[in-house]
Amino acid sequence: MLFDAAGFWRTSRQDGSLITQTAGQTDIRAVNLAVVLGHLRREAPCSRAAIAAATGLNKATVTSIVGDLIDRRLVRETQQTRNQVGRPATLLVLDGSAYAAIGLELSAHGLAALAYDTAGDQVLRWHRTGPGADARPGKAIAALAALARRAISTVESSGRQVLGITVGVPGLVDHAGVVVLAAGLDWHDVPLEAELRTALRRPDIPLHVGNDATLGALAEHTYGRRAGSADLVHVTGDTGIGAGIIVGGRLVQGNLGYAGEIGHLRMVPDGPECGCGRSGCLEALASLPAILRRTDTDPDLDPHLQLDTLIRRADSGEPSVTKVLTEAGSQLGYGLGTLVNLLDPAAIILGGGYARLAPYLLPALTRSLAEASVAPTADGRVVEASTLAGDAVSLGGVAQAFATLSAGKLPAPA
Amino acid sequence: MLFDAAGFWRTSRQDGSLITQTAGQTDIRAVNLAVVLGHLRREAPCSRAAIAAATGLNKATVTSIVGDLIDRRLVRETQQTRNQVGRPATLLVLDGSAYAAIGLELSAHGLAALAYDTAGDQVLRWHRTGPGADARPGKAIAALAALARRAISTVESSGRQVLGITVGVPGLVDHAGVVVLAAGLDWHDVPLEAELRTALRRPDIPLHVGNDATLGALAEHTYGRRAGSADLVHVTGDTGIGAGIIVGGRLVQGNLGYAGEIGHLRMVPDGPECGCGRSGCLEALASLPAILRRTDTDPDLDPHLQLDTLIRRADSGEPSVTKVLTEAGSQLGYGLGTLVNLLDPAAIILGGGYARLAPYLLPALTRSLAEASVAPTADGRVVEASTLAGDAVSLGGVAQAFATLSAGKLPAPA
Repeated sequence: MLFDAAGFWRTSRQDGSLITQTAGQTDIRAVNLAVVLGHLRREAPCSRAAIAAATGLNKATVTSIVGDLIDRRLVRETQQTRNQVGRPATLLVLDGSAYAAIGLELSAHGLAALAYDTAGDQVLRWHRTGPGADARPGKAIAALAALARRAISTVESSGRQVLGITVGVPGLVDHAGVVVLAAGLDWHDVPLEAELRTALRRPDIPLHVGNDATLGALAEHTYGRRAGSADLVHVTGDTGIGAGIIVGGRLVQGNLGYAGEIGHLRMVPDGPECGCGRSGCLEALASLPAILRRTDTDPDLDPHLQLDTLIRRADSGEPSVTKVLTEAGSQLGYGLGTLVNLLDPAAIILGGGYARLAPYLLPALTRSLAEASVAPTADGRVVEASTLAGDAVSLGGVAQAFATLSAGKLPAPA
Repeated sequence: MLFDAAGFWRTSRQDGSLITQTAGQTDIRAVNLAVVLGHLRREAPCSRAAIAAATGLNKATVTSIVGDLIDRRLVRETQQTRNQVGRPATLLVLDGSAYAAIGLELSAHGLAALAYDTAGDQVLRWHRTGPGADARPGKAIAALAALARRAISTVESSGRQVLGITVGVPGLVDHAGVVVLAAGLDWHDVPLEAELRTALRRPDIPLHVGNDATLGALAEHTYGRRAGSADLVHVTGDTGIGAGIIVGGRLVQGNLGYAGEIGHLRMVPDGPECGCGRSGCLEALASLPAILRRTDTDPDLDPHLQLDTLIRRADSGEPSVTKVLTEAGSQLGYGLGTLVNLLDPAAIILGGGYARLAPYLLPALTRSLAEASVAPTADGRVVEASTLAGDAVSLGGVAQAFATLSAGKLPAPA
């Protein structure tokens, strides 16, 4: 829960009194557009006149906005009429299948692509292994660009326009789409967004690069079992440990785009060395690679097989594996306790590999979370496994591309 | 920075495809009211017709909204006209002095009251000591109610209407205004808002109780030196250590209202005992009471004198004092490093007693913050003392009462 901190009578302190300041100009067109779209989503089919009456907007404004929506093939007219008396009005309906959004994921294990259209139909869903955690950035970017080109071509040959492409990466991503640090990929300052844009040669398609955990949280908030929960956290530990954070229904990205880095919380003063150069970080104790290492899982296996093997050993009650998973759950619970004390979320979703390990992690995790948490009772706070399987990050990419529409920003006309 | 996570085409997963869902009904009247008020703040004096033309709202809607604003004495008509040709239009101006908002603070040291009117003029500013940290809740509530009554009477006898009263308290406050836990006051589950409402017998005046650090952050965001900074944290340690958090221009309160509890971050496994029952918490090491205790400051002195004495000793370079302040700064820096990793704020403001101690805390604090922070460089992140002196909490109460206006919620007509 939150309220708008920017007071209407925003004032500044000067000589002990407060002086009224000028607020920034609101983009009224975008606000009106969002209002019209919102009305159509709830009430369509409906007429332009009905929209004007319900929203308080004047008819010329509604007509102009609807014209833009029709030009963009987001809305179309139907010949059906609702009223039996009076002059029949042409009704408007949402036009669902003209656009699709593409979400891509780059991880240490491989690449994924997912596309949905505005009607909610899945257009494509691909996974491929490689280019591998030790690949040079150039090779990974070439592979991503090839996948993106194939996805664009598939969407366009189905008669849909690409609304946008968002790529999720396991690392710190700044607002310009530079991967400042991705320890699991050994990337430093890779201008992924710019290079991908150059490689694609499609300046007409909005392209964004974001943090994987952040996009995972957006997917959970939009499509997951706790969809709509205003205060939600999505945690993954497949390479580093990252948290995607939704506060008051909005994604927290931070001033520079670096929010959600829970992995380097110092848990043990002289703990194991971390990839970041410190020691005793949560990531060094409880990430999936740390768990696999501590259970002597064969590192030459395919990553999915490593996890399968680990789960088989845990299922058979192998004490050394149970011990490692209990310890990891406990550390993760303490780490999440800090996050809970700072942000008080309603739901914590365990994503990626953590989702499959949840049955073994949760008992110790829940105990240490309760111990570390200041709030006297959990009061219905949920900690549970993601139901989005391996798709959360790419699905978050799809959701981000769609989200621009909700802000009243229309795609360029085809 | 953040973007709206609620995608326009919000859909839910079912059988592998996404189905369009119905969104909640927007309060279009409040949106339109905020749009009209926003236009008036930027452009007044202006006519109703000019507002309609600029906002796209129809004239009947604008007329109705302006009527409400005039009824509430937020706007008034003037006889001056802008156009030299055509029929003269009556112009509208903002009416600044009809309302005042009251902010109250309850701390272990005493009570404070502050009121400003909508024109930005200070109506009152009071401080009083007592009822003391060891007073029973009933006594404190009676003292607060007496102060609130005096403030209401002062505002009303000046011809202004009270827009709202917000009370800041150093503890966990839920959304119903129950002080669930205030360790520094030894309060547990005190229904402060309900009891104060009963004591005041003024159901016409909106009354809210909030966390002190949260209100401090709102004051910094609205009136402080970093006013308008979208991602800002305000930290105080006068009783417990609390963080008020602004993310994307909005206050973070959490699902239950418990956000910002940075004080119980576990810093040292076997550190000093904390009031919460754990040991090694940040609060037990770096809060103002911990600092005063560790420097053997006379606990029988008035709290302000204790701080004065401490600062005098630090100024004279007394090694035991310098050592304690350096250690506290260092622990605080590590704790804030965790917050920075999770939220990536642009500015961290040291409030309350920390503001005066900032020169002694900041060198070690800045070092350990940089060490704990994942982001490779600070890139202009600011850590500095508050300029709002002791008024941040009550000023935040004033800001909160004004903030309801920005959401398009009007006060009841007088």
